[in-house]
Amino acid sequence: MSQEGKGPLTMSHGAGGANMQKMIGDLIVPVLSNRRWRRPVIQVPLDALDDSAVVDGIVFTTDSHTVRPIFFPGGDIGSLSVAGTVNDLSVVGAEPLALSCGLVLEEGLAFEELERILRSMAATCKRAGVPVVTGDTKVVERGAVQKIVVNTSGIGRRSPLLDRNLKEARRHRKVGGNWLLDSNLRPGDAIILSGAVGDHGIAVLSQREGYGFGSVIKSDVAPLNMMVEAALKAGGVVSGKDPTRGGLANLLNEWAEKSKTGIVVEEGSVPVHDGVRTACEMLGIDPLSIGNEGKAVFGVVRERAEAVLRALRRTKEGREAALIGEATASVKGVVLHTTVGGRRILEQPAGDPIPRIC
Amino acid sequence: MSQEGKGPLTMSHGAGGANMQKMIGDLIVPVLSNRRWRRPVIQVPLDALDDSAVVDGIVFTTDSHTVRPIFFPGGDIGSLSVAGTVNDLSVVGAEPLALSCGLVLEEGLAFEELERILRSMAATCKRAGVPVVTGDTKVVERGAVQKIVVNTSGIGRRSPLLDRNLKEARRHRKVGGNWLLDSNLRPGDAIILSGAVGDHGIAVLSQREGYGFGSVIKSDVAPLNMMVEAALKAGGVVSGKDPTRGGLANLLNEWAEKSKTGIVVEEGSVPVHDGVRTACEMLGIDPLSIGNEGKAVFGVVRERAEAVLRALRRTKEGREAALIGEATASVKGVVLHTTVGGRRILEQPAGDPIPRIC
Repeated sequence: MSQEGKGPLTMSHGAGGANMQKMIGDLIVPVLSNRRWRRPVIQVPLDALDDSAVVDGIVFTTDSHTVRPIFFPGGDIGSLSVAGTVNDLSVVGAEPLALSCGLVLEEGLAFEELERILRSMAATCKRAGVPVVTGDTKVVERGAVQKIVVNTSGIGRRSPLLDRNLKEARRHRKVGGNWLLDSNLRPGDAIILSGAVGDHGIAVLSQREGYGFGSVIKSDVAPLNMMVEAALKAGGVVSGKDPTRGGLANLLNEWAEKSKTGIVVEEGSVPVHDGVRTACEMLGIDPLSIGNEGKAVFGVVRERAEAVLRALRRTKEGREAALIGEATASVKGVVLHTTVGGRRILEQPAGDPIPRIC
Repeated sequence: MSQEGKGPLTMSHGAGGANMQKMIGDLIVPVLSNRRWRRPVIQVPLDALDDSAVVDGIVFTTDSHTVRPIFFPGGDIGSLSVAGTVNDLSVVGAEPLALSCGLVLEEGLAFEELERILRSMAATCKRAGVPVVTGDTKVVERGAVQKIVVNTSGIGRRSPLLDRNLKEARRHRKVGGNWLLDSNLRPGDAIILSGAVGDHGIAVLSQREGYGFGSVIKSDVAPLNMMVEAALKAGGVVSGKDPTRGGLANLLNEWAEKSKTGIVVEEGSVPVHDGVRTACEMLGIDPLSIGNEGKAVFGVVRERAEAVLRALRRTKEGREAALIGEATASVKGVVLHTTVGGRRILEQPAGDPIPRIC
């Protein structure tokens, strides 16, 4: 289906919410889809719009990074690009194997800045244990990009822990998918969030606009492959996803839609750091709609929820993990039980309230 | 080694020649290198600076595309991005399996233009038989990029024809590498070029500057996986590479350096279409330094040169293939035997004379 006659692209088409989903679902996927090809054997196709694809047993994902500013409290475009791609591989149940690095550099960029970004990438690679093995470098005239665009694509193998993890889930209920897909959630499953939300978006926005929150709020950017491994070891995880653009609100709505189940979330259970809460109140932004770069959300069969939660809390990246809600057939979409005893629909945001955070 | 104190980046650092090679070799690779990691098992590492890496049996490559203008005679940024990545996989001896598509779109881009690019990608995917399976889409403000940047990364498997091809080569001489690497060339090997050079660069430049050559000169952009397959079937190919930025001159200098052998090329044997030759004379550009997007160069053990040449000429993309020279210990670097009976060193260009062609 074409979007012709609907005017040109706007920023909201890239902000990770409903508008982006519509453009991707109505235009990009129909044109590029290849579901009917007999080869190669695609286990998780483009159409699934999940964090990674799976082709012939290889897990494969890509992310282009345009964050502004390129250096922000707690990270930079280098650490972000490595962590983002490692996380997209990890949350579907893969063991990340290697990354590519495609650089588009603006003429006039200082070598010192480029080197700082590369060293940050290298340090994050080392932390994750995942190397950059191939790359490409383009230089464009002044004004053609803003300093730098970094694409990182990644490949991975099925985690050796995934089969046992799913077997543990299947002791309690049927699980259709063979990976940790968005469509695997079923009523009764627990929703576990690995830590506080909003830090990344507020840290980037604060640096960009000079708000000064940066002294207390740092981006959460981190590779999560070790943390996901801990969750898989505990067993019973059926879905995994990282709440980037559009934040937790976008993630849960995607899950509800793809899994055809309602989700109830206890607002008071969602960890939000005090500084982020204050900043959000001042700025009139919902922390649940802000993108994160070091968090994951897991759908877990309820019998294993406590075990997964304990396992996550023993990791550095998951020490603030919390059980925030459950899938349920008793509501449609995503419903928030507010801290003051009310209920409200947690809508899919049209887009992330903070643009260009990744 | 740092490049600090050497001033900021210039366009030539991205133009595929000596300056780019220096930046990548002195800064990017040393910082990102991981040669000493024990896992994963890397068969062709970042440091090889070849067209693709090989990790745990998976062939992996990436390319970010910033060509200007985005539509040009014979192709566009969509067909270019698919063909470029398919070719980088193919020329090392891989069967391309799947691609990723990372889009960075400028606010205000018309949906019609985006759709035209996507349809061009899809058509090139179909021609190559290689699907896009995963993607990412970012939208940035007006002025932050020029309409669109497309990254395509690709994965592939070892071609089932590669072992027999290398076995055929080994009937005639020892071959060290297990892939079609830049470092595999040895004195005596034939150098075969799959067709005429210069079309792509001149077509793009002509469109960009309004020179009007576009009526007769079209880009050669094409996926070459079928053509490479034909060469492998003939047997005896030891090296493969596509002459993109910096053209044939850059490619041959890279081979000579990595393979530690001289190369002699007969200028009169290098196919150049009349229109390109005329345009190059008018513009004062050497067609051998211009980037191509539908050509490959093969190093072939001399006993198999005729067979490979015949096989290439039977394919659509290789119908103008020519034996253009040979590796030899009798010269240093790359020496051109000119059409007027002279000899000149074919230097590695500092950069492609035509910027932003891919």
